[in-house]
Amino acid sequence: MATPGYSNHRTLIQRRLRRIEGQVRGLQNMIEQDRYCIEVLDQISATTRALQSVAIELLDDHIGHCVANAISEGGDAKDDKISEATAAIARLVRS
Amino acid sequence: MATPGYSNHRTLIQRRLRRIEGQVRGLQNMIEQDRYCIEVLDQISATTRALQSVAIELLDDHIGHCVANAISEGGDAKDDKISEATAAIARLVRS
Amino acid sequence: MATPGYSNHRTLIQRRLRRIEGQVRGLQNMIEQDRYCIEVLDQISATTRALQSVAIELLDDHIGHCVANAISEGGDAKDDKISEATAAIARLVRS
Amino acid sequence: MATPGYSNHRTLIQRRLRRIEGQVRGLQNMIEQDRYCIEVLDQISATTRALQSVAIELLDDHIGHCVANAISEGGDAKDDKISEATAAIARLVRS
Repeated sequence: MATPGYSNHRTLIQRRLRRIEGQVRGLQNMIEQDRYCIEVLDQISATTRALQSVAIELLDDHIGHCVANAISEGGDAKDDKISEATAAIARLVRS
Repeated sequence: MATPGYSNHRTLIQRRLRRIEGQVRGLQNMIEQDRYCIEVLDQISATTRALQSVAIELLDDHIGHCVANAISEGGDAKDDKISEATAAIARLVRS
Repeated sequence: MATPGYSNHRTLIQRRLRRIEGQVRGLQNMIEQDRYCIEVLDQISATTRALQSVAIELLDDHIGHCVANAISEGGDAKDDKISEATAAIARLVRS
Repeated sequence: MATPGYSNHRTLIQRRLRRIEGQVRGLQNMIEQDRYCIEVLDQISATTRALQSVAIELLDDHIGHCVANAISEGGDAKDDKISEATAAIARLVRS
């Protein structure tokens, strides 16, 4: 199996995901402490944006590696990989 | 200080946040295991949607309690609370 | 039938919607002129943000009028209006 | 100048944009007719989704043509095109 596109950024991505995990635990503490609804909502917005940044980073790696390799090979592999990437982008845009 | 609108749903919200924390740890495992980029992206989309569901739940509670109380009081308090809620919704829509 | 919450801002909202209509016609011209994909995409993002601003404005008016009136009446009307508004916000957040 | 990636889908994309223009004019009529806020909001959500579908279509064409060509050329052109596409995707995800 090919290594995924993000292999070279694994450390960076894991660090970001651990920070997001910390944000989600922070949300639980805010609820525990009866913090004001609007503050909790803003912390959720910040967490969502952090997750989307990781998605964009992964997508950049994916296009630069998996999709680029398929494009070099050409043929059906190329079209399949591009359709697959576009479908994932569509799910991100709508989530 | 007034109890926040979500007080009656605290258990439900904490359960959802713990599940989201689990999803974020799951993402770290996927990266560790070299899982395919598109699968990781879809798991990020699912986590984002779960966070947005919590936000919508909190917003519903907030309008039904904090905003409703301010509307009953009337005057500046009413307009301030509505503007504050709308600004938080705007940040959610854009995040 | 009650007048909708946006009655007092009708002129402002219509002006914004006409500008958005102009942006959509501008998009058609860009396609006609073979403009670069990325420029077209950025114009689509700008148009989407403009539509969302109108939505936020309508929502602010809706909470300040229709929802506020239902809250003053209390009872089922209150809960129904809040659920309805929250459901519309959820559709906005996800669109 | 190279033809943009969407050249082969120009008719389809123009048809969709004209339909979106019609949706925006429909929104103006709804406001004129004092239609209920929630109905207007749902029509805005539908219009936003239609715009995003056009963006996804353009992006698919862009990756399949402009980005694919740059990848075949390799070197800086490749990295530049991928970064440019990723930045446009990030703006879409956040709009």
